[in-house]
Amino acid sequence: MRTRLSGVFPPIPTAFDDTTGHVAPAAVAVNVRRLMAMPLAGVLALGSNGEAPLLAEEESDRVVAAAREAVPADRVLLVGTGREATRATVEASRRAAGLGADAVLVRAPFFYGAQMSQAALLAHFTAVADASPVPVVLYNLPGVTGFSLTAGLVEQLAEHRNIVGLKETSSDLDRLGRFAAIRPDRFAVLSGSAPVLYPALCAGAVGGILAVANILPSACLAMLQDVRAGRHESALALQRRLVRIAQLVSTVHGVAGLKAALEMIGQPGGPVRPPLRPLAAEAREEIRAELTAFQASFEARDTDRALV
Amino acid sequence: MRTRLSGVFPPIPTAFDDTTGHVAPAAVAVNVRRLMAMPLAGVLALGSNGEAPLLAEEESDRVVAAAREAVPADRVLLVGTGREATRATVEASRRAAGLGADAVLVRAPFFYGAQMSQAALLAHFTAVADASPVPVVLYNLPGVTGFSLTAGLVEQLAEHRNIVGLKETSSDLDRLGRFAAIRPDRFAVLSGSAPVLYPALCAGAVGGILAVANILPSACLAMLQDVRAGRHESALALQRRLVRIAQLVSTVHGVAGLKAALEMIGQPGGPVRPPLRPLAAEAREEIRAELTAFQASFEARDTDRALV
Amino acid sequence: MRTRLSGVFPPIPTAFDDTTGHVAPAAVAVNVRRLMAMPLAGVLALGSNGEAPLLAEEESDRVVAAAREAVPADRVLLVGTGREATRATVEASRRAAGLGADAVLVRAPFFYGAQMSQAALLAHFTAVADASPVPVVLYNLPGVTGFSLTAGLVEQLAEHRNIVGLKETSSDLDRLGRFAAIRPDRFAVLSGSAPVLYPALCAGAVGGILAVANILPSACLAMLQDVRAGRHESALALQRRLVRIAQLVSTVHGVAGLKAALEMIGQPGGPVRPPLRPLAAEAREEIRAELTAFQASFEARDTDRALV
Amino acid sequence: MRTRLSGVFPPIPTAFDDTTGHVAPAAVAVNVRRLMAMPLAGVLALGSNGEAPLLAEEESDRVVAAAREAVPADRVLLVGTGREATRATVEASRRAAGLGADAVLVRAPFFYGAQMSQAALLAHFTAVADASPVPVVLYNLPGVTGFSLTAGLVEQLAEHRNIVGLKETSSDLDRLGRFAAIRPDRFAVLSGSAPVLYPALCAGAVGGILAVANILPSACLAMLQDVRAGRHESALALQRRLVRIAQLVSTVHGVAGLKAALEMIGQPGGPVRPPLRPLAAEAREEIRAELTAFQASFEARDTDRALV
Repeated sequence: MRTRLSGVFPPIPTAFDDTTGHVAPAAVAVNVRRLMAMPLAGVLALGSNGEAPLLAEEESDRVVAAAREAVPADRVLLVGTGREATRATVEASRRAAGLGADAVLVRAPFFYGAQMSQAALLAHFTAVADASPVPVVLYNLPGVTGFSLTAGLVEQLAEHRNIVGLKETSSDLDRLGRFAAIRPDRFAVLSGSAPVLYPALCAGAVGGILAVANILPSACLAMLQDVRAGRHESALALQRRLVRIAQLVSTVHGVAGLKAALEMIGQPGGPVRPPLRPLAAEAREEIRAELTAFQASFEARDTDRALV
Repeated sequence: MRTRLSGVFPPIPTAFDDTTGHVAPAAVAVNVRRLMAMPLAGVLALGSNGEAPLLAEEESDRVVAAAREAVPADRVLLVGTGREATRATVEASRRAAGLGADAVLVRAPFFYGAQMSQAALLAHFTAVADASPVPVVLYNLPGVTGFSLTAGLVEQLAEHRNIVGLKETSSDLDRLGRFAAIRPDRFAVLSGSAPVLYPALCAGAVGGILAVANILPSACLAMLQDVRAGRHESALALQRRLVRIAQLVSTVHGVAGLKAALEMIGQPGGPVRPPLRPLAAEAREEIRAELTAFQASFEARDTDRALV
Repeated sequence: MRTRLSGVFPPIPTAFDDTTGHVAPAAVAVNVRRLMAMPLAGVLALGSNGEAPLLAEEESDRVVAAAREAVPADRVLLVGTGREATRATVEASRRAAGLGADAVLVRAPFFYGAQMSQAALLAHFTAVADASPVPVVLYNLPGVTGFSLTAGLVEQLAEHRNIVGLKETSSDLDRLGRFAAIRPDRFAVLSGSAPVLYPALCAGAVGGILAVANILPSACLAMLQDVRAGRHESALALQRRLVRIAQLVSTVHGVAGLKAALEMIGQPGGPVRPPLRPLAAEAREEIRAELTAFQASFEARDTDRALV
Repeated sequence: MRTRLSGVFPPIPTAFDDTTGHVAPAAVAVNVRRLMAMPLAGVLALGSNGEAPLLAEEESDRVVAAAREAVPADRVLLVGTGREATRATVEASRRAAGLGADAVLVRAPFFYGAQMSQAALLAHFTAVADASPVPVVLYNLPGVTGFSLTAGLVEQLAEHRNIVGLKETSSDLDRLGRFAAIRPDRFAVLSGSAPVLYPALCAGAVGGILAVANILPSACLAMLQDVRAGRHESALALQRRLVRIAQLVSTVHGVAGLKAALEMIGQPGGPVRPPLRPLAAEAREEIRAELTAFQASFEARDTDRALV
C-alpha cells in the first residue's frame, strides 16, 4: 500500500447543483476523469476540501460512488470517513469500502477534545482499523482539531496491520519528520500542505494530498519528480513559485477559492454550501492573476528544461 | 421568553443501553421527571452533555420526544440543534420544534473555523433564526469551537425577533457582561459554567445551564435565590463550596463524570459512547468523596438558615 | 496588610520628558499628589502601565523615590519589581523597599516560560519573599506571560508570611475566585481588569489595580462603595458604563491611550517610550468622546443619588 | 555578509562560577576556543542559550569581550542585543559592536505584545538598524514572544542596508521558506531548530544557530556538507539520528540540559542562573544515554563513508 500511496492526490471538491444545492455526482465524475488523465496516484474524496462535514450520510455515499466510477482500478480512491462517534466512523468506513474505496482517511474526533486522551484516541483508531474492510490512513490536522496526534501514539498505531499511513496537514516539519521516521518501509506519510511540499518530501513524505493539485496537477507532479531525480534546486524554485497560488486555494480562501479556480480552468466548480460563503469578486481576481502568473512561469520552466 | 429562560436548566445526559449502546429514551425520561419535581426553569436536551455530536439524527429525535414527554408544558424544553451545515441546522431545528421543543440552542459551525467570518456567522445564525419555528438561543463555547462570538455580532443578532438569548460557556465575565448588557430587557444571557455562576449572575446573567444542576439542582437554585434576595455573602460561600464538584462532573471528567455522579444519587447514568471513555475507578471515588462532602455542608447551611 | 490593600490603586504611568525622553520625576509626583487627594488605598509604581520593562534600573529608582515623596505614609506605595532573574528581582525589591515601598508586586519570569515548572516558580517567588524587606504581592498576568499561576501554587505561596496577596489581570473569574478563596482572612486578591471589577468584587476581590483609576478614580471608588453597601444594581449599571473607557485606556490603546487620557483631564501625560507608539489622532478622539460621555452619565448618577 | 553567515553557529552558554554565581569569562573563552577548532562559521553569544535575559548589562559586556578574544577575526561573532526598549537595544548593540561583535541578533520586544503592530516593529527594527555600527540579524522566536514576524514586515526590513538576515526558531518551514525567498542573494536565513535543520536547508536556509552545535559540531557540519554535496539521503538519515539529542539539550531540558551535556564532553558547563533550575538526575542520565548512542552511530557513519 505504501507504494500505491506514494504520489500526488488531489482532494476533490464536492460539486453542488447551482439551483437546488444538491450534490451533483456527474460533475464530481467530470473532475475526477480529467485528473485521472495525469499520472496522479489517485484522489481523495470527502476530505475537508470535499465539504464532507456539510454532507448528509447519503450524500456522502453518492460522492464516493461517483468518484469510484471515474477512478481507474489501478489508482487509489481514498475516502474521508472521520466522524465524531467511533460507531459512525466505523459505519462510514464500511460503506465507503462497500462503494469501492481503496483506503479511508480518518481524522481524530475533536468536539470533546479535552477528553481525547492518548488512551481514547488509541481506542478510537484501533476500533476503526479493526472494523474497516480497507486500510486506514490517519489524518492529523491540528489547525482544525486543536490538538496534534503525538509521535508516540502514531508509533503505536503504525503497528496495526490495517493502519498504513498518515496525512499531516501543517507546516511543522519536525512533526512530519518524526512521523515519517516511524516505519519508513511500510508507513506512508503524506503532506497536506502544498507550501511545504518540497521540504516535506525531503523530510520523508512520500507524496501529498494537496488542494492545489486539483488545479495544477502537473506542477505538483513535477516537484515530486524533481526530488526523486535529485534536482533539488529546481524543486526549491518551483516550490517558491507555487506557494502563493497554493495558499489562495486552501488556507486563504478555502473551498470557495478552490472551486473558483476550477472554473477558471474550465472545470465544474459551482457554489459552496453554507455556512461557507461565495467568493468575493476581489478574491476571484486575486486568484485569477496568480494562476495566470504561475502558469506562464511554469510553462517557461518546462520549455527551459526541454531545451537543456 | 426572557422570563421563561430566567432560571436553572440541567443539560441532561443521553442515556444509552448498557448492552446494545442504543439510545434509551425511557431512562432519559426518568431523569427529566425527577428534575422537574424541582422549581427548575426547564432542561436542555442534546447539549454537549447530551453527547449530541455522537448521535445519529434519528437518535436525536428520540431523545427530544422522550424529554418532551417528561417536561411539563409550563417549563422550557431547550434542544441543541447546532450542526456544521446551515441546512442541517435548519432541519434539526424544525424537527425539534415539531417534537415539542420550546426553543433551540445553536452553536457556531467550527470545522471551517478559519472561514467563519463575521459575515458567515451572521448569515448562518440569521438563516437558522428565519427558518426555526421556535426561538433561537445562541451558544458560545469558545473552548470547543476555538473562537468566540463577538459582542458586535451578538448585538446584530439580538435584533432578530427570533433570537432571544445566549449561553456563554466560559469563565470570561468581561465577555458575558457585554453580552448581558446588549438588550437586558429582552435578550437573556445564561451561564454555562458553574464555577462562575455567582459572579455571572452579578454580571447580568439571568440563570445557568449547568451540568452540576443534574446532580445538585437545589444548590444551583439556592444560589439564584440568594442573589435575587440580595444575600451576596451566602451566595459567595455557596459558590466556593460548589466549585470542585461542579468541575468534576464537567471540565475534569466530562460526560463520564456526570453519568457516574448520576448513578451515585440513584439515577440512570450508564455508559458513555466511544470515543468517550468509561470513568476510571479513582475518578469515581474522587467524585463520590466530593459529592458527599458537598451534600453534608449544604444541608448544614440550610439547617443554619432555617434556624435564623 | 490585607486591610491596607483593600481598595483602589491606580497603576501610575511613568512620565518622560518631551524633548529628551528621560524620566520626569516631578511630573510623576504631580500625578500622584492629585490622586492622593481621593480616598484611594495607594498607588502602584512601575507596573505594566508604568512602562517598567522599558526603564533602566536607575530610572526605576527615580520613579520610586518620586512616588514615595507624594504618597502619604498612611497609604500604600506598591512597586513592581519583577525581573527575569531571581537575583535581579531580589535586588529590585530591596532597592524599592529602601526607597520607601510598602510592598512589592512580582510577576513570574516568562522568557523561559517552557522551563517555568511549578518547582521553578515556587523557588523563585519563595526566594524573593525570603529576601524582600517588605511584603510581596504576586502578579498573575497570563496575557503577557503566556501561562497562569495555578491555584495549587498560589495556595503554597500564600503560606509564606511575606506573601500577602495577588493581582489577577484577566477576566477569568473562575481563577480569580479560586485565588480569593485560598485564605480569605489574610491573603488579598486584587483585580487588574476594570471591565470585570464589579463581578470580581463579588467573587472575592478586595479591590483593584486599574489603569482607568488614573483617570476616573471616583468612579472606581463608587463601585467599591456600592458593593460594600449592598447596592448591586447600582454597581452593575456603573460597571456597564465604565467598560468602554476602561478598555480604551488599557487593552485597546495601551499606555499611549492612558497618557492621552491623562492630558485630557489636565494632567501630565507626555510621550511613551519606543517601541511603544504615539497615539493616532482617531484613537485620541475616540477616547475623548468616550470620556466625555462617561463623565456626563456619572455626574448624573451622583446627582440622582444625592437627591434620594 | 551572507557568505560569512552561511554555516553553523553554536549559541554559546554563559558560564557562571559555581560558588558565587558570577559570570565566568574564562570558562566562556575555553568553550569558544574548542569550538573554533572546527570549521564553524562563528558563534552566537548572549542568545537564549546564553541566559542573556538573566544578565545585568555589565555582565553581558564581559561575556562579549571574552567571546571576542576567543573567536578568530575571520569568523563571525554574533551577539544577541534584543531588549524591550528601543533605546536599550540600540545601546546594547553599540556596546557589542564596540567590543568586537561582527553582527547583532535582535529579537522583537514582546512584553507589550498586543501593542506590537507592524508599524511598531518596523520602527523598532529600523531604529536599531540605523544606529547599529554592525549589521543586524533579525531573530524570530514565536515560541517565546507569542507572535511571529510576518513575511511582509521582513520583506520591508530586508531592504534596509544594515539588516542582513534572520534566525527562525521554529519548525514551521512554510514561514522559513518565505523568509528565505525574500532576497536569496543577499538576505541570509538561519534555522534555530536542529530537529528541522535538514529540511530547513532544503527550504533555503544557509545554515543554523543550534544549541546542539555546542555539543556535536561535527554532526551539524556534516549535515550541511551533505546537503551542499547533494547527499540528501545521508542528510535525512543523519537528521533522524540527531533529533532526539537536539531536543534534549534545547526544548526539553533547556539551558540546564545544554550545560550538563557540555560537562559530559569534558567542557565547562556549570550551574544555570535561577529561576532556571538544576537538572534532575534522571534527565542527566537521559542525555548521557542519548549522547552515547548518537556518537556511536555517528562514528560508524563516518567510518562507512570513509570506506566508500
